Amino acid sequence: MKEIIAIIRMKKMNETKQALIDAGISSFTALGRILGRGKGQVHFDILEGAENGYQEAIEQLGGPPRLVAKRLIAIVVPDEMKQTAIDTIIKTNQTGKPGDGKIFVTDITDSIRVRTGEIGDAALV
Amino acid sequence: MKEIIAIIRMKKMNETKQALIDAGISSFTALGRILGRGKGQVHFDILEGAENGYQEAIEQLGGPPRLVAKRLIAIVVPDEMKQTAIDTIIKTNQTGKPGDGKIFVTDITDSIRVRTGEIGDAALV
Amino acid sequence: MKEIIAIIRMKKMNETKQALIDAGISSFTALGRILGRGKGQVHFDILEGAENGYQEAIEQLGGPPRLVAKRLIAIVVPDEMKQTAIDTIIKTNQTGKPGDGKIFVTDITDSIRVRTGEIGDAALV
Repeated sequence: MKEIIAIIRMKKMNETKQALIDAGISSFTALGRILGRGKGQVHFDILEGAENGYQEAIEQLGGPPRLVAKRLIAIVVPDEMKQTAIDTIIKTNQTGKPGDGKIFVTDITDSIRVRTGEIGDAALV
Repeated sequence: MKEIIAIIRMKKMNETKQALIDAGISSFTALGRILGRGKGQVHFDILEGAENGYQEAIEQLGGPPRLVAKRLIAIVVPDEMKQTAIDTIIKTNQTGKPGDGKIFVTDITDSIRVRTGEIGDAALV
Repeated sequence: MKEIIAIIRMKKMNETKQALIDAGISSFTALGRILGRGKGQVHFDILEGAENGYQEAIEQLGGPPRLVAKRLIAIVVPDEMKQTAIDTIIKTNQTGKPGDGKIFVTDITDSIRVRTGEIGDAALV
């Protein structure tokens, strides 16, 4: 099994989710708001302020390349779905402008559905 | 070493923590509130609203299968503790109802305790 | 490629970022505030309260070893940069006191830059 971690624009989240569902990947295992990428200056105080809803901080997020809030999607799929997942994420997120995001893949050695104890690919579908 | 990532019900967090401690796994390396799983509709606006404390959004979290806020636990253990960790998480979280969560395992190739420079299993205990 | 996950003190974030940039690692792929480590008591209600800005909860975070809010940095680097990244993080975060943090390394099998479709090390720089 493969874990596919995609770091994408925040506003692309719902579209990406829908595209993955349409591609047969209906179950996300982890989604979160992250922060990051650090070419240039990343000021965490600003980021935290923005996360906590301070308007001034939020406005600074829109400024020069200091900081970008992003979404992280993590999905675990059977090996044979890896390319489908990657292609779907690229297709949905590729605007050609910097900031389209990155995708990383790692091996998952075990997968277990807690409710049933099912393991492996059976735990994913 | 193995990283064991468990996605569990939010209300099961403390019980899971205690069970892991009782099983000899007293150190969590990462814990967070995540969001996700997407059979059905996942509306991130609602989720974000709920995260930011808006009552209306929080109430919607309790609605139909649109969205489920979850806890993610990540623990890193020596290989021989893998099954103990998995069994402990299953035992604590298995209610038999959908939403009990999932467990994923990945290989960790290096582990370092920053304070001492200890590596490998020695960095974990 | 390697993913290097470092769990460090919150106040060490900016210094670590700058040290990584100085070492030629200018792109973080994921950064977040996490919570955890559980020798002793971890009360998530307190943690959540603190995250939501309640002063009373924040003060409790400073108490006995119940709970420590931490930063998690995840960077993906070419194999040959692994040791540089680790050394940089240790050098920046090693105070000799408990709580300096931990570093974990996992293998990344695929890396893709969404904008260009570049893969492998080329997607990282």
